[in-house]
Amino acid sequence: MIVPPRPLGTDATIGILGGGQLGRMLALAAARLGFKCHVLCPDPQSCAFDVVRRVTEADYTDKDALDRFANDVDVVTYEFENVPAETATFLSARRPVLPDPAILATTQDRLVEKSFVTSLGIATAPFAAVDDRAGLDAALAAIGRPAVLKTRRFGYDGKGQVIVRAGDDPGAAWNAIGRQPAILEAFVPFSREISVVAARGRDGGVVVFDIGENEHRDHILAVTRVPAAISPALAEAARAIAGRIAGALGYVGVLAVEMFVVEEGGGRVLVNEIAPRVHNSGHWTQDGCSISQFEQHIRAVAGWPLVAPLRHGRVEMHNLIGHDVAAYRDWLTVPGASVHLYGKPVVRPGRKMGHVNRVFHD
Amino acid sequence: MIVPPRPLGTDATIGILGGGQLGRMLALAAARLGFKCHVLCPDPQSCAFDVVRRVTEADYTDKDALDRFANDVDVVTYEFENVPAETATFLSARRPVLPDPAILATTQDRLVEKSFVTSLGIATAPFAAVDDRAGLDAALAAIGRPAVLKTRRFGYDGKGQVIVRAGDDPGAAWNAIGRQPAILEAFVPFSREISVVAARGRDGGVVVFDIGENEHRDHILAVTRVPAAISPALAEAARAIAGRIAGALGYVGVLAVEMFVVEEGGGRVLVNEIAPRVHNSGHWTQDGCSISQFEQHIRAVAGWPLVAPLRHGRVEMHNLIGHDVAAYRDWLTVPGASVHLYGKPVVRPGRKMGHVNRVFHD
Repeated sequence: MIVPPRPLGTDATIGILGGGQLGRMLALAAARLGFKCHVLCPDPQSCAFDVVRRVTEADYTDKDALDRFANDVDVVTYEFENVPAETATFLSARRPVLPDPAILATTQDRLVEKSFVTSLGIATAPFAAVDDRAGLDAALAAIGRPAVLKTRRFGYDGKGQVIVRAGDDPGAAWNAIGRQPAILEAFVPFSREISVVAARGRDGGVVVFDIGENEHRDHILAVTRVPAAISPALAEAARAIAGRIAGALGYVGVLAVEMFVVEEGGGRVLVNEIAPRVHNSGHWTQDGCSISQFEQHIRAVAGWPLVAPLRHGRVEMHNLIGHDVAAYRDWLTVPGASVHLYGKPVVRPGRKMGHVNRVFHD
Repeated sequence: MIVPPRPLGTDATIGILGGGQLGRMLALAAARLGFKCHVLCPDPQSCAFDVVRRVTEADYTDKDALDRFANDVDVVTYEFENVPAETATFLSARRPVLPDPAILATTQDRLVEKSFVTSLGIATAPFAAVDDRAGLDAALAAIGRPAVLKTRRFGYDGKGQVIVRAGDDPGAAWNAIGRQPAILEAFVPFSREISVVAARGRDGGVVVFDIGENEHRDHILAVTRVPAAISPALAEAARAIAGRIAGALGYVGVLAVEMFVVEEGGGRVLVNEIAPRVHNSGHWTQDGCSISQFEQHIRAVAGWPLVAPLRHGRVEMHNLIGHDVAAYRDWLTVPGASVHLYGKPVVRPGRKMGHVNRVFHD
């Protein structure tokens, strides 16, 4: 990988792979710092295109387009974790790509990811590999029920997973996830799900945002509340875990670690998932802190110093999903609420259309 | 003028005249709300061009370019108060232009502006018109010395003005400002200069931000501190004045009213100047409040509701002027500080290159 020799100058251009709302908000954060951005995305209606001067509408494997893109930018980053390996390899030979796409081999596969986390001595829910139908029976015998069967790759927002309860037919579950390499995880009796959003700079320094607590509806994040209602000791343990993961990955940029809080034995956290990117559960930082997750990420990939955020109060982030986006009108006049809309031209059920950050001084 | 019949939809495009940092920050605020922006500016290096997809690089009087621009946008606003009258007239026949450019006839001329303010029963420093060299002598006799001789039009950041003290040659002052229509103002012994940034919606509702206190260096704003160190009664009077001015102008959008605080007689305020646009002294709202002056302006011109801001603490805004912009590096790691750089390609003495908003929870 090409490592940039020094911090980017303020005249630099940052290349962003992916034109969704995360790419859009990364570009908006970069603009505050004076950087130019160039977004590459195959979707002509990419909402990130609207906030930058230079765009490339091309497939991620279009070598000519990638070459032009690389020549126009000083550093490349990405908004999503499923960057094709050949894209990453092609770009990495031409420009620094941060975070290092080699990390994606770990986080794109739930089994590799969980194995990596446990190799650090960090707890997860008990899990077992499931390579075939017989393997599922063996895994169920080892893990017990209820358990969650998940595809190893390309799962998000509850897609590619199914719960196997007592009495359920394992064959139906195996069919439901498409009979592909999977992982079976124990269904842990967690009291809450928390997100730890951490930034790691090129110098190895780590800054962790205050911990948020997530509420999902229909497997999609609905609300994040900050701070999470957990003990200071547990919060400190969770922050340390995120820092250790970022360090062990040699990560540069922002990542989010989703964890379950289990109350047994006085309370502890289990790592559920690593998102190697800015994350929906960190959107509250835009209005709740002196620095957002997006700016922290841009600073990291630019080689600029990170800074500890000053949090302005208690914060709630409410997602605006699908046709519920119409609720933005009511939010506009709520005291302390900041409305964010992504400019997506088409509303679809389950589609993330915007969010609201509400700060409370109490 | 064409008045838009209803609030803009989230798919609307906002046209912005002027591509400097104010246009840039208006576009960034509009993007948060999902709007697209189209910036028109003659300068090919306009820093606002970098944060929007659609730009028109053309002179403000290029009718073909203005026509294409108008056809592409749903509403037009502007970042500067010297929009040529013919530009405003041309665009107003095609699209709603907000705030109504007719207001500029009042604020582009210091004499008309001061006369307007006093006609509302609002105090200013004593002033007199100066049409020629003899008129200056008459004005000095009426106003006394020291006094400030200012051109009626096109003055900003201390340009086009000169102080006439006891013993100074009036002829030299008259020459210094280029022997053009002017206004002579009494040099009032003010204790501080404050800025009242107010937004007025299409429905006539007014929302005023907390009042900032300005510190200038070399006639350029250097620091704004919020809240201003004035009594609650004086602050309330100042807010009311800004609201009355906005209402009397039929203003839609954000304006800033600069006022002098004089301590005589228990303290009162004198209106110094009206800026019919978002203003440098309102930049602190970006990080100091739940809503910025830029978003409040965009909401107003879009016909969206305004909202009372929640201020997160004491705030200082520090301008980064000319080569002092290099100080941004030190600010990056100051707790509670948010750095804004404008992406201007060339540094010039006196040029506004960026600013820093610092929030204190104390």
